[in-house]
Amino acid sequence: MQDATQLIPGESPLPLYVQIRDNLRRQILDGSYQVHERLPSENEMMNAFGVSRITIRQALRDLHNEGLVFSAQGKGTFVSKPKAVQNVQRLEGFGEAMAAQGYEASARVLSIQQLKPPKAVAAALDLAAGDQAVEVKRVRYLNRSPVCVENSYFPVDIGGQMFGLDLSNDIFPMLENRFGIPLGGADISLDAILADDETRQYLNLKTGEAILRVERLTHDRNGRPIDFEYLCYRGDSFKYQFRIDRK
Amino acid sequence: MQDATQLIPGESPLPLYVQIRDNLRRQILDGSYQVHERLPSENEMMNAFGVSRITIRQALRDLHNEGLVFSAQGKGTFVSKPKAVQNVQRLEGFGEAMAAQGYEASARVLSIQQLKPPKAVAAALDLAAGDQAVEVKRVRYLNRSPVCVENSYFPVDIGGQMFGLDLSNDIFPMLENRFGIPLGGADISLDAILADDETRQYLNLKTGEAILRVERLTHDRNGRPIDFEYLCYRGDSFKYQFRIDRK
Repeated sequence: MQDATQLIPGESPLPLYVQIRDNLRRQILDGSYQVHERLPSENEMMNAFGVSRITIRQALRDLHNEGLVFSAQGKGTFVSKPKAVQNVQRLEGFGEAMAAQGYEASARVLSIQQLKPPKAVAAALDLAAGDQAVEVKRVRYLNRSPVCVENSYFPVDIGGQMFGLDLSNDIFPMLENRFGIPLGGADISLDAILADDETRQYLNLKTGEAILRVERLTHDRNGRPIDFEYLCYRGDSFKYQFRIDRK
Repeated sequence: MQDATQLIPGESPLPLYVQIRDNLRRQILDGSYQVHERLPSENEMMNAFGVSRITIRQALRDLHNEGLVFSAQGKGTFVSKPKAVQNVQRLEGFGEAMAAQGYEASARVLSIQQLKPPKAVAAALDLAAGDQAVEVKRVRYLNRSPVCVENSYFPVDIGGQMFGLDLSNDIFPMLENRFGIPLGGADISLDAILADDETRQYLNLKTGEAILRVERLTHDRNGRPIDFEYLCYRGDSFKYQFRIDRK
């Protein structure tokens, strides 16, 4: 235990589990505990901090909820890898953004099909009544771990050209370089949800894990909406980042 | 049941619960089911769709995870209010952004104190070793429901002026108009986590609900970091939205 002695029960107005949690969190964030290092066992922490098992578990549960630690059955509690960060200041595909940071990014295609799109998709893509769309479902990997499930929808004149092509990388450069469609801007919205069964399965998640869900509508340079996507990121392994101005 | 007849088991490759879920989701999103309307009971849906209770529950659980429906003990399943959306194209306080959309926004102060800040906060605010900071903890309300827990940290020369002031509204206009500090930009990062006990309590959440967590570092016009915040939004009631460009 690096510095349990910094915790002096009775000297702080904060609940004990909060002090222990914050103490452990600090040591994880400042690198005192390394990525994938095992934290002391519950018994070791009970002795070191002089508190009950319930208190230790409460502290560890909060750290787990934040994604800072993970548990391996019968092996203890370990420090998680830091979350990957995508800077969304400019419109970039996942692969482009991650490769720039030295990650190995890839995609596995689950399905590509032409279909009657959900109503919200048809509205976003400004399709006429009865128009179909091309749906591409993929899992995105970062350093060979699954981090995101993507459902992308394209108008048929664009998506129809994708059948048979290699979709294991970003689609943005394909749109620009192969199809000759210059991209404009994208409207993005983000929220937090719990994973559904399908997403859980593809991302190797347990029940009740948090998902950062992104809806992204990309336009071509002329303002035509050409790509509507739902991106479901593992909450414990991904962050979005950007900068905004007051005026 | 508005149009259960559109579901024809056996005619789709999708699992039954997915078809039922998507059918219900569509009717919620297109307004066939109104906000706070009760969905048909499990028994009614079992009869209408000709499926088992497990299948209905699986469909409802996914809709619950997405925040589209909520359950009231013994009363059934109801359609949730749409999530509030904050456009973060420009730097605005919660109150400014929400009032512009016709919401009634307010804040309840939990505490204001001068303290030794956590290490990450001291680094973000560029404090010298040993410098203290002023911490303001608040709960933000939207139409009188709690939607966000905010922990804000200010350098002492700024935060020290806040003791005794009314903090039930946005702090940005106070910084600008009362303290005469023109604001510049902010660095924002977003991720999804599960609520910890404290956040659950303030936001009236059950165990295991998703939180949209925002870290926001605001600078004054000269680039000095003056306000570092952790904003924890209820995942089921809030969305962030913005637009980005390719080039």
